[in-house]
Amino acid sequence: MRAVFSDRARIAAMLRMEAALARAEAVHGFAPEELAAAIESIDPGSLDIAGLGRATALAGVPTIPFVKAVQARLPPDLERAFHRGATTQDVLDTALVLQIRDALELLRQDLVAVIDGLARLADRYRATACAGRTYGQHAAPVTFGFKAAVWLTGVAEIAGQLPWLRERVLVASLGGPVGTLAALGERGPEVLEAFARELGLEPTPLAWHALRGRMAETGSWLAILIGALTKMAADVAHLTSTEVGEVAEPYQPGRGGSSAMPHKRNPVSATIILAAHAAAKAQVAVLLDAMAAQHERPAGLWHAEWQALPMLFGIASGALREARVLAEGLEIDEARMRRNLDVTGGLLFADAAAARLGPVLGREEAHALVERAADEVRRTGEPLPQVLARMTPHDVSAAFDLGPAVAAAGPWIDRARAEAERVRASLTGG
Amino acid sequence: MRAVFSDRARIAAMLRMEAALARAEAVHGFAPEELAAAIESIDPGSLDIAGLGRATALAGVPTIPFVKAVQARLPPDLERAFHRGATTQDVLDTALVLQIRDALELLRQDLVAVIDGLARLADRYRATACAGRTYGQHAAPVTFGFKAAVWLTGVAEIAGQLPWLRERVLVASLGGPVGTLAALGERGPEVLEAFARELGLEPTPLAWHALRGRMAETGSWLAILIGALTKMAADVAHLTSTEVGEVAEPYQPGRGGSSAMPHKRNPVSATIILAAHAAAKAQVAVLLDAMAAQHERPAGLWHAEWQALPMLFGIASGALREARVLAEGLEIDEARMRRNLDVTGGLLFADAAAARLGPVLGREEAHALVERAADEVRRTGEPLPQVLARMTPHDVSAAFDLGPAVAAAGPWIDRARAEAERVRASLTGG
Amino acid sequence: MRAVFSDRARIAAMLRMEAALARAEAVHGFAPEELAAAIESIDPGSLDIAGLGRATALAGVPTIPFVKAVQARLPPDLERAFHRGATTQDVLDTALVLQIRDALELLRQDLVAVIDGLARLADRYRATACAGRTYGQHAAPVTFGFKAAVWLTGVAEIAGQLPWLRERVLVASLGGPVGTLAALGERGPEVLEAFARELGLEPTPLAWHALRGRMAETGSWLAILIGALTKMAADVAHLTSTEVGEVAEPYQPGRGGSSAMPHKRNPVSATIILAAHAAAKAQVAVLLDAMAAQHERPAGLWHAEWQALPMLFGIASGALREARVLAEGLEIDEARMRRNLDVTGGLLFADAAAARLGPVLGREEAHALVERAADEVRRTGEPLPQVLARMTPHDVSAAFDLGPAVAAAGPWIDRARAEAERVRASLTGG
Amino acid sequence: MRAVFSDRARIAAMLRMEAALARAEAVHGFAPEELAAAIESIDPGSLDIAGLGRATALAGVPTIPFVKAVQARLPPDLERAFHRGATTQDVLDTALVLQIRDALELLRQDLVAVIDGLARLADRYRATACAGRTYGQHAAPVTFGFKAAVWLTGVAEIAGQLPWLRERVLVASLGGPVGTLAALGERGPEVLEAFARELGLEPTPLAWHALRGRMAETGSWLAILIGALTKMAADVAHLTSTEVGEVAEPYQPGRGGSSAMPHKRNPVSATIILAAHAAAKAQVAVLLDAMAAQHERPAGLWHAEWQALPMLFGIASGALREARVLAEGLEIDEARMRRNLDVTGGLLFADAAAARLGPVLGREEAHALVERAADEVRRTGEPLPQVLARMTPHDVSAAFDLGPAVAAAGPWIDRARAEAERVRASLTGG
Repeated sequence: MRAVFSDRARIAAMLRMEAALARAEAVHGFAPEELAAAIESIDPGSLDIAGLGRATALAGVPTIPFVKAVQARLPPDLERAFHRGATTQDVLDTALVLQIRDALELLRQDLVAVIDGLARLADRYRATACAGRTYGQHAAPVTFGFKAAVWLTGVAEIAGQLPWLRERVLVASLGGPVGTLAALGERGPEVLEAFARELGLEPTPLAWHALRGRMAETGSWLAILIGALTKMAADVAHLTSTEVGEVAEPYQPGRGGSSAMPHKRNPVSATIILAAHAAAKAQVAVLLDAMAAQHERPAGLWHAEWQALPMLFGIASGALREARVLAEGLEIDEARMRRNLDVTGGLLFADAAAARLGPVLGREEAHALVERAADEVRRTGEPLPQVLARMTPHDVSAAFDLGPAVAAAGPWIDRARAEAERVRASLTGG
Repeated sequence: MRAVFSDRARIAAMLRMEAALARAEAVHGFAPEELAAAIESIDPGSLDIAGLGRATALAGVPTIPFVKAVQARLPPDLERAFHRGATTQDVLDTALVLQIRDALELLRQDLVAVIDGLARLADRYRATACAGRTYGQHAAPVTFGFKAAVWLTGVAEIAGQLPWLRERVLVASLGGPVGTLAALGERGPEVLEAFARELGLEPTPLAWHALRGRMAETGSWLAILIGALTKMAADVAHLTSTEVGEVAEPYQPGRGGSSAMPHKRNPVSATIILAAHAAAKAQVAVLLDAMAAQHERPAGLWHAEWQALPMLFGIASGALREARVLAEGLEIDEARMRRNLDVTGGLLFADAAAARLGPVLGREEAHALVERAADEVRRTGEPLPQVLARMTPHDVSAAFDLGPAVAAAGPWIDRARAEAERVRASLTGG
Repeated sequence: MRAVFSDRARIAAMLRMEAALARAEAVHGFAPEELAAAIESIDPGSLDIAGLGRATALAGVPTIPFVKAVQARLPPDLERAFHRGATTQDVLDTALVLQIRDALELLRQDLVAVIDGLARLADRYRATACAGRTYGQHAAPVTFGFKAAVWLTGVAEIAGQLPWLRERVLVASLGGPVGTLAALGERGPEVLEAFARELGLEPTPLAWHALRGRMAETGSWLAILIGALTKMAADVAHLTSTEVGEVAEPYQPGRGGSSAMPHKRNPVSATIILAAHAAAKAQVAVLLDAMAAQHERPAGLWHAEWQALPMLFGIASGALREARVLAEGLEIDEARMRRNLDVTGGLLFADAAAARLGPVLGREEAHALVERAADEVRRTGEPLPQVLARMTPHDVSAAFDLGPAVAAAGPWIDRARAEAERVRASLTGG
Repeated sequence: MRAVFSDRARIAAMLRMEAALARAEAVHGFAPEELAAAIESIDPGSLDIAGLGRATALAGVPTIPFVKAVQARLPPDLERAFHRGATTQDVLDTALVLQIRDALELLRQDLVAVIDGLARLADRYRATACAGRTYGQHAAPVTFGFKAAVWLTGVAEIAGQLPWLRERVLVASLGGPVGTLAALGERGPEVLEAFARELGLEPTPLAWHALRGRMAETGSWLAILIGALTKMAADVAHLTSTEVGEVAEPYQPGRGGSSAMPHKRNPVSATIILAAHAAAKAQVAVLLDAMAAQHERPAGLWHAEWQALPMLFGIASGALREARVLAEGLEIDEARMRRNLDVTGGLLFADAAAARLGPVLGREEAHALVERAADEVRRTGEPLPQVLARMTPHDVSAAFDLGPAVAAAGPWIDRARAEAERVRASLTGG
């Protein structure tokens, strides 16, 4: 991802944009036929990237030094037609979109891998009962496969929007100084269509110089994707905690240690994802800010995008890499899950017990009775089945069977797997 | 919008959810047939809403007092089957979704009106030349119709996603305490499907209690919509400024005045939209935060959603109402636009002049020549045509004709209008 | 806090501002002597608050309807001098500052109570050993008193800035339409000084209409305060979790239950604080946004402040109330803390063991040895003291004594208590 | 600023921290006397910085590879005592604070320069009348010196808090694995005091590993500072706009041009500051997030700080550099200011006219009369003095004199200058 958004890759994308423009303009007589090939023959690495950076800091935008540097490489007769009709934003936005296309492809690959890993977890631990927790407290039993299916669903439902996002964001930018491409007369739209075709991008109805919705959407999608990974990371961080210990991050030599504490095995992947979430949320605000773009090009807001979007892609890429580590390598301690189910002396089944008493006692009274029994369990440590047996003549022992909870989880896992499979197919063209 | 998210509307939606649940459960034998009708017969207004509010502050969630209050209205034999298998979040999330459905319908109506208003502006001022501005400075001529078409495109492209958003967010929530709906055994998915059908909502693969992506997406869409309106408001705020004066907000008696300055006509609609943008961006962060939902229900993050989403709908509704005022009533001063085009002594055509000189002098030299001429214009006040006539033998007087700029803008307006028409049809089923 | 920021309180503060202005202007001959008393005799409740709200929605600012409503109550000869030289922002900002003064006083009282409660916890559990945790994992022993002292320090260091904040924010606003108070000629500064004195506020060098730094500072302070409470809430949420169970929120009948699960005792106070944190962070961005105030009054950004700041005070007040519940009533399970210290078979002392081996083996080798021993403990369940006894001839049994950890924590508690005492005195004038 | 937060500078600061720790520990017998000098003799540049980066990505924290790399440079007898009792966070936080100290010094210098530049503008244009604008519209006359004094006050009031911020943030971090520095027994506080003294930092009552308030405060201060600069930049961006043209950014060859439009002179400095504002606001949220640090060290939130704070310093530094360009070089067009005052046909004096009519007609009637006259001016273009002369027998011609507005502005400039002088002295020790 760092390569995709490197200075060099940006220069290469800018050159690619200019070549496509030359080709599209040549069709309509606005540029000589040879210009495109001449541009394409320039090696991005041969331009003085550090020098361009310094000139950009002075000029305020990168295009002026770039255009000068390229013109210096072109024969005089071609140089005159270079960059014709285009403006800074055409070059930068189109180049950014080309980089985004590469970046989304990298994310797509990681997303498929994460989906596959989570699907395996959901299948493998389909019948592994573990505590369901709300507000940090044991609530009722679920299975670890169900938990993995929830993660899977969260990731798949965001990943499933990638095709839609590609449609929205993979668009060419070509509008000239004020968006009307006036230098090309009334043939502007035709040139835009040809230009977009050259690059494998879509044209937009009109220039999006000051319509930054698609950038905000891209940023939101990235942040929401990171949010979906963070749900998993938040669960993992808690499940790896000492008292819970139900999962461990896969062992990597040299990872997760502490400079002071030799026994530590810190959840590094979860930590990185949680940090990514904090960083990503913030960048979305920058992109929303940038929508308030005044007139044909604003002062300042667009420029804030330049950092925010590549940064978000970098953050998302790092988070996905770690999510893949988790999805593919998480170590599950089934025995510990079983033991943890028992730590509350049966309170985890309080809901099931109340459900069985409901039809006989009425829902409210059943709820109140079990609430009193739960207090007794907490106070004395006596297991709930025994306490309830004393407090009511109705036999609720069947409530303490894990079987129904495991059975109930199954169909949901099936549904989640089927939906994820559908999304996976849409991502892989399969 | 205030009515949609009122306490009373929320109680009504919660009752509707419980009735639908009763109906779906009755089909599968989990509830008596008469329960649904009994719930439906309760008048939301007859529940003590203020009392429920106080009890909620104590209990931490609104469902417990609500369930108690409803049970008190039901005959004992029905009371026992009420709320069976469901948990707080099923009630609250489903009720919220029902409110969101109503809210989106309100926004849809306003969106159609804004699109219609902007389309009229784009048509009416298709040939009205005005200054295109970048970085706050005159850049090259456009038409006011083109500017309106840009606003139209910005709004339409977000509005066009409403059908997708509805698909994502109009989903039922029914998972029980930990998401597996275990109280209903393995028939959970069937009950969910029936429940969703009752409410005209979609089922999800599994419970979204801890998968808050769709709420974040809803929030992002709202903020991006407000962003699109803000682009228009930012333009209007500048165009109404004293020195520019090209547009005025429609006159409403009592609006836009100043307690101190009797001559002021402040752009109140634009102001409200700009304030909405500041407020809305912030709420998105809350919804992204909420995605880090630990386990089967988190402590705190979900609760932050309760305020953020209704607030965002309120903000969006207010911003759309003002956008409609602008789209339907903006007053355009064509004469002033014409006069402003002349204030720079022809500098606005510098780009066109350079474009004409490019083929003869080379792009760079042409650019430099016109740059020097522009300096001269700024220093002496002499109009650019005269300065250029002195500096170069090449006749560029045709560059100072507004015709080509107006002509170039036309096709883009057509494209924008066609796309907006397509979106409008998708919003109105037309 | 709701009363402090009610519509009625705002109207009362606006009337108070106008009365103070009348008094200050009377001194310099700009207003009749009787005006102030006439304004003061108006009962805020007698103004039609709902009607003012509707008129405000139309006018865009609340001042015009307010000024009209007050003038209607004044005799004609006084009415003419009312609101002289002042502008909307003078009234609204000064009224807001008066409300902030009341709000800060409420927060001050709660802060003192939280400090007192946490100081008691720090003292009472000074020698109660418990696990120190990093990355969710047992790291090394601390004491619960030390943990409380950390919370105390976090709250005290923010609370200690309240006097500074009061100095910054309790300032009068009086600048007239464009800040120069030109209607009062060159005596503007004198009238400002008198006006500020009347209200017990400070004057500023010049009008802060478009200098919103102090509002952003107030918002940041509130959010940082909530952040300090959130550190405590995040700890409490984890310590109350089922597997840890070291603390419980104080029992309140009807609180913390679940509509589905009769055994639940959810950490409601911690939940509310965590939700407050999510909401508060977002509002700070609004206030930072508002600093970009163009010229003598901006369009939009100032208006966003109107909601953001009262909302932040409301959030902070709710969070502090719950923090007080925790500080004053948290139930500590010392026996559970002791048992949890043992769950890792001595790994918690790995750091101490390595420290004892360092001088003999070298730091790195000692670290590596203990790392290997820890792996053995995790794999076999054999306690660390036994494993180490087998792996090295050096006696490290003293490392497994809790005494030194408890002793080491003591002096830090003393320091924290002393600093908190100093802050407390600065808050209570004691 | 880039140098201050370079990888190399960070390594140097980490080494400095370890040397200071060694010196402080030597005093109390925890480390050999020679250790500090041995650490100090290591050239930061000689450590393999790229290799440390890669190892950090694996380990999750930079300290472990760093400690190993340093130990490899130390003689075996010293190596054992290196980093004694300290933990990762002690090293990283203290190193960060040392970098912050250097960074704040850079900002201080720029702040003094900005204050000086703005003070000169305030003085030089003390009597240069120009339009005061609210909601983008002419409101009443001010002077440009007054506007500069407002900018000056905004910057000075934030700069004036630098001494307080230094006190808060320039603190040493030394707490060991869980904050109690238990490896040093009960002498922890003494070692901390000595350690802090070595580095010229303050000690804190107890470890701030999980108390991140001071980082959030630093971030808020930076963002608020940028906000103050943004107020100026927002004004400049508008004042440089074509129709206004009252100021121009200082001419720098190669700056502010356009790749397409040879006549453009874009406000690059203002643009960069406005972009900085968008980026900075977002980072504050990250730092507020990080306050929710669970237990003795959290997973993720602290890590997000690592990027956010250096980024904020970088943004602030860039913004201040451009603010200095503006403060020291802004070009003022006094003639244009004078012409702009006249563009509304006297409406700018409507407030003054109403003020003169108030005592005779009553405030409300005067306001309404001038409102009607203003409508007439707008409709017919006839100047306000003539319209009013027709509408009322009272002579208000004196209201159209700029003198009083200029005179009224003067004392406020004096006050602002005096306050800024006070702040300047506090920043320069003068």
